[in-house]
This record gives sequence, structure tokens and C-alpha cells, in this order.
Amino acid sequence: MSASGAEPSVFSRIVAREIPATIVAETDRIIAFADINPQAPVHIVVTTKTEEYRNVVELAAGDPGLLAELVAVAGQVATELSDGQFRLVFNTGAAAGQTVFHVHAHVLARKPSGDAAAGLLGEGTLGSV
Amino acid sequence: MSASGAEPSVFSRIVAREIPATIVAETDRIIAFADINPQAPVHIVVTTKTEEYRNVVELAAGDPGLLAELVAVAGQVATELSDGQFRLVFNTGAAAGQTVFHVHAHVLARKPSGDAAAGLLGEGTLGSV
Repeated sequence: MSASGAEPSVFSRIVAREIPATIVAETDRIIAFADINPQAPVHIVVTTKTEEYRNVVELAAGDPGLLAELVAVAGQVATELSDGQFRLVFNTGAAAGQTVFHVHAHVLARKPSGDAAAGLLGEGTLGSV
Repeated sequence: MSASGAEPSVFSRIVAREIPATIVAETDRIIAFADINPQAPVHIVVTTKTEEYRNVVELAAGDPGLLAELVAVAGQVATELSDGQFRLVFNTGAAAGQTVFHVHAHVLARKPSGDAAAGLLGEGTLGSV
């Protein structure tokens, strides 16, 4: 599973059911699960089952169709768990907050209640710097 | 240019040079320019020249190759203006902070100095909610 020949990534171990996770969507090539350290009322990680691509730039260059499938699953998850409105975040590089070098997106959304207390994701809050 | 038959989007007007912008990259189908309200030391908007797609879910479904091209330009911009490490953000829906319904990504990065004061993008700062 590992492109580098090193140990499988934590996400590959989730795919293999070696590490427990709250899986919310799965296709032949994509898996989505709850982030263990949520930054929003709904916070899902969407990743490719392959760990061939370290980040979104490599995935876009290597398999545009797989990137599109990842985004489609992200949208489906946001519709199922919220109201379809969501922030999609890809971090590339440790300095940008990437901690697992197996391409993945973060889906951030409100709870579907629409309650103001459920939290808005403002354009001015793209991430503190 | 407008899918709805309404007025062209602000981004289409930037493409047409009707509105000034600091353009940092341009291909046949993609344009990238500085955000007028930067949320990071480097903050670039990368958008498709067509406004056919309102958001990343529509773009992924309609033209995976164009989505891949947008991501490639985002990576190039992050390399040219910073050190290639960056956060890529797509907002889908007003509640997620989307204000222009013409698909676009935000590229957020540090200044290339690598100075700690240039700001780190932490995994814990994906956007306040």
C-alpha cells in the first residue's frame, strides 16, 4: 500500500480496518470518516484508498478522475450530514498543516439544524495564520 | 459568460480586464489573482475562466480535467510566491463562506522567508466555526 515502501499510512490502516474510525462513506476508491479532532460541527476526512499520491497536486497530476471522485464523495457527505454547504480544505506540506502525507480533504460544515448557534463558516475565517 | 444569463460574475469581469486585479498566473482556461481581502501572507484566488460551474462539486462532475488544471495552477502559484506548501480551500454555499458563485479556490501560504513570524497554517486552524 505504501508508495515509499515504508509502513502503511494511518489512513491506509483505517481502510484495512486495522484502526477503528467512524466511516461515513465508502466507494471502491474513496473512503470518508470522522476526524478525531473536529474543527467544525461536522468534520469529515475524505481520502483515496491508495496512498500513491501524497497531496492534492500529485493527485491532480496523476489521476484527475480520482480527484473528481473524492470531491463528489465530499459533496455527498456534506449533503447527508449537513445541508450540502461546506468548506473543502486540502493541506499541502507540513507548514500548511498537513500531518498525514496521503492525500486527503477536510470537509467542514454546520450541523443541519441551520441554527445560528451551529456555527457559520465565514469567508474571513479561512484559517488563522 | 454567465450560465444564468445574468450579469457576468466579478471573476469574469477580472478575466475580461473590466475590473483591475493583481494577476499572478493565467492559462487558456484558468486565472489566478491576489485576494483583495487577504487572510494569509500569500492569499491567491484561482478560478476557471468559464463561470459555467458554480462550485467545486459542479466542476468535479462536469470537467474533472479542468479541476485538475485549477489545482495544478494553485500548486504553481504556491511554489512561485511561497515554498510550495499551501492550504487550498473551496467554499460551497453561502453558509460556508462562498460569496461569488463562480467556482474558485483560495490558496493560502506563508511568505517564502520561512520566518516563523511569516505565519504557520496549523492543522487546528482550518477555519473558525
